[in-house]
Amino acid sequence: MVVVAILAAGRGTRMKSSLPKVLHKLGGLSLVERVLNSVDQTQPIRRIIIVGYQAEFVKTAMAPIPNIEFVEQTQQLGTGHAIQQLLPHLEGYEGDLLVLNGDVPLLRPETLSNLLQTHRENQNAATILTAHLPDPKGYGRVFCDGDGGKKFVQQMVEDKDCTAEQKLCTRINAGIYCFRWQDLAQVLPHLQANNAQKEYYLTDAVTQVSPVMAVDVEDYQEILGINDRLQLAGAYEILQNRIKNQWMAAGVTIVDPSSVTIDETVELYPDVIIEPQTHLRGSTIIHTGSTIGPGSLIENSQIGENVSVQFSVITDSSVAAGVRIGPYAHLRGHAHVGEGCRIGNFVELKNTKLGTKTNVAHLSYLGDTTTGTKVNIGAGTITANYDGFKKHPTTIGDNTKTGSNSVLVAPLNLGSNVYIAAGSTIAQDIPDDCLVIARPQPVLKPGWVSKKQNEMNS
Amino acid sequence: MVVVAILAAGRGTRMKSSLPKVLHKLGGLSLVERVLNSVDQTQPIRRIIIVGYQAEFVKTAMAPIPNIEFVEQTQQLGTGHAIQQLLPHLEGYEGDLLVLNGDVPLLRPETLSNLLQTHRENQNAATILTAHLPDPKGYGRVFCDGDGGKKFVQQMVEDKDCTAEQKLCTRINAGIYCFRWQDLAQVLPHLQANNAQKEYYLTDAVTQVSPVMAVDVEDYQEILGINDRLQLAGAYEILQNRIKNQWMAAGVTIVDPSSVTIDETVELYPDVIIEPQTHLRGSTIIHTGSTIGPGSLIENSQIGENVSVQFSVITDSSVAAGVRIGPYAHLRGHAHVGEGCRIGNFVELKNTKLGTKTNVAHLSYLGDTTTGTKVNIGAGTITANYDGFKKHPTTIGDNTKTGSNSVLVAPLNLGSNVYIAAGSTIAQDIPDDCLVIARPQPVLKPGWVSKKQNEMNS
Amino acid sequence: MVVVAILAAGRGTRMKSSLPKVLHKLGGLSLVERVLNSVDQTQPIRRIIIVGYQAEFVKTAMAPIPNIEFVEQTQQLGTGHAIQQLLPHLEGYEGDLLVLNGDVPLLRPETLSNLLQTHRENQNAATILTAHLPDPKGYGRVFCDGDGGKKFVQQMVEDKDCTAEQKLCTRINAGIYCFRWQDLAQVLPHLQANNAQKEYYLTDAVTQVSPVMAVDVEDYQEILGINDRLQLAGAYEILQNRIKNQWMAAGVTIVDPSSVTIDETVELYPDVIIEPQTHLRGSTIIHTGSTIGPGSLIENSQIGENVSVQFSVITDSSVAAGVRIGPYAHLRGHAHVGEGCRIGNFVELKNTKLGTKTNVAHLSYLGDTTTGTKVNIGAGTITANYDGFKKHPTTIGDNTKTGSNSVLVAPLNLGSNVYIAAGSTIAQDIPDDCLVIARPQPVLKPGWVSKKQNEMNS
Repeated sequence: MVVVAILAAGRGTRMKSSLPKVLHKLGGLSLVERVLNSVDQTQPIRRIIIVGYQAEFVKTAMAPIPNIEFVEQTQQLGTGHAIQQLLPHLEGYEGDLLVLNGDVPLLRPETLSNLLQTHRENQNAATILTAHLPDPKGYGRVFCDGDGGKKFVQQMVEDKDCTAEQKLCTRINAGIYCFRWQDLAQVLPHLQANNAQKEYYLTDAVTQVSPVMAVDVEDYQEILGINDRLQLAGAYEILQNRIKNQWMAAGVTIVDPSSVTIDETVELYPDVIIEPQTHLRGSTIIHTGSTIGPGSLIENSQIGENVSVQFSVITDSSVAAGVRIGPYAHLRGHAHVGEGCRIGNFVELKNTKLGTKTNVAHLSYLGDTTTGTKVNIGAGTITANYDGFKKHPTTIGDNTKTGSNSVLVAPLNLGSNVYIAAGSTIAQDIPDDCLVIARPQPVLKPGWVSKKQNEMNS
Repeated sequence: MVVVAILAAGRGTRMKSSLPKVLHKLGGLSLVERVLNSVDQTQPIRRIIIVGYQAEFVKTAMAPIPNIEFVEQTQQLGTGHAIQQLLPHLEGYEGDLLVLNGDVPLLRPETLSNLLQTHRENQNAATILTAHLPDPKGYGRVFCDGDGGKKFVQQMVEDKDCTAEQKLCTRINAGIYCFRWQDLAQVLPHLQANNAQKEYYLTDAVTQVSPVMAVDVEDYQEILGINDRLQLAGAYEILQNRIKNQWMAAGVTIVDPSSVTIDETVELYPDVIIEPQTHLRGSTIIHTGSTIGPGSLIENSQIGENVSVQFSVITDSSVAAGVRIGPYAHLRGHAHVGEGCRIGNFVELKNTKLGTKTNVAHLSYLGDTTTGTKVNIGAGTITANYDGFKKHPTTIGDNTKTGSNSVLVAPLNLGSNVYIAAGSTIAQDIPDDCLVIARPQPVLKPGWVSKKQNEMNS
Repeated sequence: MVVVAILAAGRGTRMKSSLPKVLHKLGGLSLVERVLNSVDQTQPIRRIIIVGYQAEFVKTAMAPIPNIEFVEQTQQLGTGHAIQQLLPHLEGYEGDLLVLNGDVPLLRPETLSNLLQTHRENQNAATILTAHLPDPKGYGRVFCDGDGGKKFVQQMVEDKDCTAEQKLCTRINAGIYCFRWQDLAQVLPHLQANNAQKEYYLTDAVTQVSPVMAVDVEDYQEILGINDRLQLAGAYEILQNRIKNQWMAAGVTIVDPSSVTIDETVELYPDVIIEPQTHLRGSTIIHTGSTIGPGSLIENSQIGENVSVQFSVITDSSVAAGVRIGPYAHLRGHAHVGEGCRIGNFVELKNTKLGTKTNVAHLSYLGDTTTGTKVNIGAGTITANYDGFKKHPTTIGDNTKTGSNSVLVAPLNLGSNVYIAAGSTIAQDIPDDCLVIARPQPVLKPGWVSKKQNEMNS
């Protein structure tokens, strides 16, 4: 039985932001959301966010997240003081407390499960997460004793209090703790603020319970905190490398991984090829054999097998197998493209469903449109789906072809095997097997150009 | 006289691919094609690919490559077993055998020439390529003796069999061998599979002939093999750095090299500037003074002097000197742009030839079109080159100007000094010096808008 | 009182360029312009560029820069010889001379101020800028003596003349000097070219005056010179990291800093978010809360608060608060977009002013146009602002809506609450509250398509 407490009361001054630090986004999720996600495997019975700076703002921003509670720390008097605020809320609680930092977003779920498991199996009063840093300067060191993998904490020393020899120790306190709550609850009220900052430190509580063990994190990058935008960018790179390395191991070719970003919510099949400068976001799925990029953004969209997408943006849409898209296409707002279609340059599809083997090759906007199969939408064809008051649908039958620069004024039904002549504006339904021309006779004025040129030059 | 054998029978399980490993692409060429290219300087008399996993698929995929032979290794019983398959094919052969790996694609031709030269000059029975790795862990070590640059191989020890002292040796076996075939042919039939994997190792053959020398590769990165997609990405970066450093040394400015990719088939002149996120592919040539990018892709195209291209895609086309292209232009399918033209945003040219100083500045599609000089194609002008059945040409004379959103219905000839009025659809040839208007008279309905708005709101 | 001399006579052979080295661009400014900018804080009374290779070309290229003088060094006989050329130009001058290299563009102004201050406070005859290099190989070493931060130069030794012990010294001569001119002027005429290159070295002059101090540069990257394109790319990366780290420290989120470039003339507000592959140039300002990118280029433009720009190019334009732009929009030539507007895909705005809450969502070109508020420009609407002879303006009143593929033939005034029907070409002014239709009646030819198909197939 574990309760999770997340320290999220700080302002994060070095972020230089009007947004409280824990709400900054890292790859689509806020820092504190990432921390919340990292505890899922531990199955907490309660999740408590300790808020302080802009508490109301943070609570409002986090309101959509289910099953969380907020406890306010009105003054910022240190980590020990923050946890003291839990005392009235956890009276009589007999389980464990997992203490996390709202600005340490890279912890893997396995790391916390492992911490909790060690804590429980050894019936510790406290278990602390530690890391070996290549450069531990500035961090509190943790000195342990023990064998068989059990690391009993002997001493915790702040960097500034370390002897020269102690400074050589690379094991540092990551600030992530698991406590037997009843032990902690006994010592919490008696913490002292005997230090220059006049703060109450949670580490003091650790030293007053027993036994205390340390668990080393596998990869020290997991415990890095975010204090400024440079660290935010650094954390994003770590996160992205994790995701991209995982997909490469699963059989995805990423030509130039450093230029690509992939949200962890994306799903990729083997033999997908991701070209440079491509960004995959949200609940996107890309099936085997597809090549995406360069220069593409796909968000919340399903891409079938053997699709190619080049220099295009696709959001909230689906694309069936064998479709070629781009360069410079934009699919959005529930565009659904059937098998074997071709979507060319300067084409926008919105809330539109294309039957198989349909081509929209150049300079078109189709909105609120449904087409049959083997339709050919001519260059510059536009659906006038908005009459200035509301949106209307267009339906186009199988094998129908629209001429260049034709305008389809919705609501409109074009039958099957209809040919719309180039330059025609069509505002009435057209039956099957029909050629339609709406085109004025040209008037020629011979000699006009040279006459006009003479005028201009004189 | 040298025969080349390339080991290409493995599946490459860690690629997690339906494609056999050696067929994966690295910068436009498959791994095994790159290995084949690396032996050109050695002028092999025969090139034998030893195939196994998906042998028929590999043979079909490689069929377009001239002068190669395939030998099948139906069971995967080690490198020695693979080379044993050559015995019936090389009966009586009296030259050398160069053994390469189909998944080691970064060898420079000079390296293999050098290996072969050392082999021949010293009349070795075998000469092996070695490398000094910064971290040799996991690789078989090679211990040599000798002076004057001649390195006689004394011992080859697998990593797991190395003593602590031997592990300090950084010279490793790269798995690339040159053999005097007749010596090798004598020992090949007697190889033993006395090891845990029950495989026949080619290294055993090396220890049974004499003399054997080692040749160190200059840059250890050349001998890195591809076993998974992460290594594939790593190899691509190495390859790209080679290419980009070479072009920078030759006088090309690459503003942000890490974001740019350049195929080795591309040719660049001094004082070309490559902006970020630009990709140059295939048989592309870019002449001096041109600036390409950011965000551009040029493939199989010739770009003249002092051209600027920004956020555009150009394939299978040519662009003369002094042309400005983009942003968001797309030239493809044999577009040929004359000197001093301007191709603007949202413009597609396909199978189209533009005379000098012609402008196509906005939202146009020209297909199967030939223009004279100083033509001005108005915004939204589209050639209706496809009548739903087949494609037709359009010809436009010197100094002709098309109005906005005009449609040119092919087949069509516009003379010189023709002015097409805005919004006109032209489906008949127009003689020189002519203004053409095809435009219905507007009908005004005063008060309509407020009346309609009242209806909608009531 | 200080005179600045910049050595800019070299060809820069390794650049492989027709452009003299000091004129190569590094982030929008030439190398020599950057050197000039780095001395601003020292308030020089004269700025002298010593030119040689392509002297006339360099002088012409630099002509727009105010308050600079040129002195020609017709032969390239070393740095000492270059400074000798100043003798006739500085006769009787009683201040200091700051000697800089035209190909060392990364010096921070503080570094030069600091050099000059040390020089003056200590009444030195010469003060030289030194740096500690991680790998000093190839550089002349500087050996100092002194305490209290004063580093008196004892000896300067060329790399090739260093003893094994001397080679361990990492303090190198950066080639940047401050001289008391009168001291230097006495020794300059007597320099000897007693060396293999037969050149006159300025270091020889340093050894002949006294006292001489060294000032260590804080970051050795400042003193790196540009000799080839690889070094040019490296210098750009250093420069960009400086700029990007500064903006991140100031509260700007840069998601993937390595893919972004920002000129130092750009100004960013806190809580701006820069997405990958985005380039900010010239006198661009972006206000708080805006998200720019991915794949965008903004040059010489002002972007208001809470604007989003995606895959777009904006030059010489301004965008008010709350506007959404892109993907694939192009604003240029003094486009001014009012608050809350929406500029969508394949839209070009040129010399155009949009009132608040106006939408131009798809496939439009507006040139020389002024709109009121809440205007809706339909997909494919194009202003025909060029009649083949000159440009004309278009004015559009509040709440007016243009239909799809409508053409507005300028000069044109559309009133308020005007509705232009889809497919209409309008070449006459339209009063308020008016629906306008210019659309021919369609002609239907039933059975035409199947008949034609039969013909084609027979």
